[in-house]
Amino acid sequence: MVELNRRTFLSGSVAAGAAALFGTEAAHAAGAVKLPAKWDETADVVIVGSGFAGLAAAIEAKKAGASVVVLEKMATVGGNSIINGGILTATGCPQQKKHGIKDSPELLAHDMLVAGLYLNNPEKVKLVADNALSNYEWTVNELGVEYNPDAIGQEGGHSVPRYVFTKNGSGSGIVSKEVEKLEKLGVKVRTRTYVKHVLRDDTGRVLGLEVLEGYRFPKTGTGKTKFIRAKKAVILCYGGFSRDVEYRTMQDPKLTAALDSTNQPGATSELWRETSRIGCAQVQNDWIQCTPWNNPKEKGMGIGWTFAQSGAAEYGLWVATDGKRFVNELANRKVRADAIMVLKGEGKSAVAICTKPNLKAFEEARPGMLQKLLEQQIIKEYKSLDEIAADYKMPVDTLKATVAEFNKAVETKSDPAFGRYINNEQTPLAEGPWYAAEMSPKVHHCMGGLVTDLQCRVIDVVDGKPVPGLFAAGEATGGVHGAVRLGSCAILDCLVNGRIAGQQAAKA
Amino acid sequence: MVELNRRTFLSGSVAAGAAALFGTEAAHAAGAVKLPAKWDETADVVIVGSGFAGLAAAIEAKKAGASVVVLEKMATVGGNSIINGGILTATGCPQQKKHGIKDSPELLAHDMLVAGLYLNNPEKVKLVADNALSNYEWTVNELGVEYNPDAIGQEGGHSVPRYVFTKNGSGSGIVSKEVEKLEKLGVKVRTRTYVKHVLRDDTGRVLGLEVLEGYRFPKTGTGKTKFIRAKKAVILCYGGFSRDVEYRTMQDPKLTAALDSTNQPGATSELWRETSRIGCAQVQNDWIQCTPWNNPKEKGMGIGWTFAQSGAAEYGLWVATDGKRFVNELANRKVRADAIMVLKGEGKSAVAICTKPNLKAFEEARPGMLQKLLEQQIIKEYKSLDEIAADYKMPVDTLKATVAEFNKAVETKSDPAFGRYINNEQTPLAEGPWYAAEMSPKVHHCMGGLVTDLQCRVIDVVDGKPVPGLFAAGEATGGVHGAVRLGSCAILDCLVNGRIAGQQAAKA
Repeated sequence: MVELNRRTFLSGSVAAGAAALFGTEAAHAAGAVKLPAKWDETADVVIVGSGFAGLAAAIEAKKAGASVVVLEKMATVGGNSIINGGILTATGCPQQKKHGIKDSPELLAHDMLVAGLYLNNPEKVKLVADNALSNYEWTVNELGVEYNPDAIGQEGGHSVPRYVFTKNGSGSGIVSKEVEKLEKLGVKVRTRTYVKHVLRDDTGRVLGLEVLEGYRFPKTGTGKTKFIRAKKAVILCYGGFSRDVEYRTMQDPKLTAALDSTNQPGATSELWRETSRIGCAQVQNDWIQCTPWNNPKEKGMGIGWTFAQSGAAEYGLWVATDGKRFVNELANRKVRADAIMVLKGEGKSAVAICTKPNLKAFEEARPGMLQKLLEQQIIKEYKSLDEIAADYKMPVDTLKATVAEFNKAVETKSDPAFGRYINNEQTPLAEGPWYAAEMSPKVHHCMGGLVTDLQCRVIDVVDGKPVPGLFAAGEATGGVHGAVRLGSCAILDCLVNGRIAGQQAAKA
Repeated sequence: MVELNRRTFLSGSVAAGAAALFGTEAAHAAGAVKLPAKWDETADVVIVGSGFAGLAAAIEAKKAGASVVVLEKMATVGGNSIINGGILTATGCPQQKKHGIKDSPELLAHDMLVAGLYLNNPEKVKLVADNALSNYEWTVNELGVEYNPDAIGQEGGHSVPRYVFTKNGSGSGIVSKEVEKLEKLGVKVRTRTYVKHVLRDDTGRVLGLEVLEGYRFPKTGTGKTKFIRAKKAVILCYGGFSRDVEYRTMQDPKLTAALDSTNQPGATSELWRETSRIGCAQVQNDWIQCTPWNNPKEKGMGIGWTFAQSGAAEYGLWVATDGKRFVNELANRKVRADAIMVLKGEGKSAVAICTKPNLKAFEEARPGMLQKLLEQQIIKEYKSLDEIAADYKMPVDTLKATVAEFNKAVETKSDPAFGRYINNEQTPLAEGPWYAAEMSPKVHHCMGGLVTDLQCRVIDVVDGKPVPGLFAAGEATGGVHGAVRLGSCAILDCLVNGRIAGQQAAKA
């Protein structure tokens, strides 16, 4: 009889490392992990992870008077947040008002629940939605984040355009400001610090961490063991596991190594496993999001997605290589990624198409990006639909009929075929030049994770009560997004809950 | 700020008990649970749970020469299995051949994967499907289970009719034979034995259990503590948590106390929590199945489902109270239960309808059942569609048009509206008497659970390796069914994997 699990695990790219990574002492339950006789260092609040959530938590904890340590296992600060697309849901922001878009926290919450298949914790959803505007304002007023002052965008699954763009077109536009703020407060992120164990005492309280300082990812056995005591609390903001083939295929066998991921290499599962080991409740870890709009010519996140989403999905259209539309270009990411996977199974590809006139908003929101995409040959320019059809071996008459039909939808502001939201500023696709690019799903975001209450306290799986001394926020947690996270809601979740975690931990 | 999790938990019907149930010493991780200085008893193999899987494991372990103890927390043997519907997927069985139905393990595996949204472990699916016939034969030849020798049925999501019926119309027809066999082998199930802790030593090996003998469900504090050493292995066959409102709403907030469950009261989560505490990998716990076909007039599983499924879904039709069909009556359970929930949200109800001539197979397969359903007023008899329409306040013309349209599908063996499989023996619904009954979803089955390999060894969440000395099978495990378990595949899974677990544990 074949030993499936072992075999599958060992064939994963991460697995060989993983076995060594965890070492023999981690092969069993918490009983064998010992508290240190002496702590090497003490701080009020110890934060794991330096993405949006971890940095926001650190800022708030420090402002509340706590001494704060922030740990990052990689050599650089920012985790996935720093390569994130920098689009932030900001219901009620000035940019929405400029474009005359009606929106409300209630509509945002509704969109999140619908996409989440109502697996979301409804009170967590309400909390995040209610704070969309104040969160945007906090990033502007407290951090000094710069957004494009005019542009407003719409990711799939949202009823209306409601995201703002960072000026530099990346999450780094927020992370860098968080780091600046934190350094002004006197806290510097400690990179290359790997968390080996979260230590609970016999009463169940989290006392601190066993870490490896000077760790070099992904080399096990590097770094020096150190025990850090957290007098008030540990806050876990360790992100997702999209790059961990072994763990993600255990949750969803379809997400094999054949699928690329948008994430940085450090998005692995060791702390998902460790928090399981110490009895933290986790839910919905099997809901792992693939993006629909990544470009197969690039590795990882890349930049091609900006054209496919902010260009073609919002102002152009998506077609299969049979020349037909195949999905609502503004459906949620799961619907769209699944639709593209089905196409691929049928031997077809998915192509995003837009015209120069319809890229006006795109060019304003992301200055220089179009030129960059063309120079790097991530997208291609065409004189006509005939040229696109020839390049992708599409039946040209079908493609032209599809575009003509879609233009009717644009003119009538009604898309009977797919129910797509038609942007007020969308015009019929008629004059070129035309642009097109292929799309291919990549593993992107983990919806599930640690169960937390509204104060971001981590829940113990045995008794359903908060684990004393333990908080969490961001992608490491479940509950906010349910089955499907809406695009542009990640930063919102991370900042709102990261801040709450920091405030609460300082009071713990 | 509201403490959502605590509040939600405490509002659940089980929660008040749960808090006391786990006690203070269970509020924290494994560190605080101690190994006994002395074991009160020793056996080679200790099995938790006395449903299909636990009993099958016990039979095999005992036959392989191991000394065996089987523990059951309730006062009676059989768990949910004894109130199960007694329908068993038996691809390749004589009953299929009698009816000229073509089937194969490959088609069964395909159906399981499609319904499971390919979240299933494909090798686990193959194992179960390949053993469908030999499993059926084992129950007949080894256990002496009696099935209706002619009847073959079709649950939703199956491409063809492929389930056999136990003669007594219940899972008890199998459980009682397993118990008989086991007693012949000299093993008696010990009821009222509550498992408090699964004990791992510092090397990670499972050594045995801490139990409460003489426990009276659901009273915490009852029973006497005893430590049982498992020299070779513990096998966990503790079933699902459908009756545990607190735990199930943590996984899926929609499954509130407002929903009834088909399960016996003992289907609670304490061992799902306990195996999390000791670091066992669990997946897909958020996939919790509601049945489509239960009768709202009955509490729990009841018997009304037999008419709605084996009668109306296979030989009649389902309509909403607007008089129209609303779903493929043979779609998988999730599709159908979701469709009924949507109807209810619209203020409508779902009604199963069949005629006396089309209940021929039903009456043969389940002698006496029709009379019982009528006597208990679970279903009602009508002279005509007009009477049904009047009773359910349906527009009678719409209902008649729906039936006429459906009869065309029966005659042409093609259902363009919903793609329903039309049974060879289905006839147009014309002559009465007519029967009808309302349907309402109930929480039924947990698809997720412990991660096991093909030898039913439980996987450690930290290192992905088998936990030494720990096996599992049945509803307590995840992987076989993915997103949706097909009807009539539960017994198959439980018996096939229960037997493997027993064989392997005896060799451990």
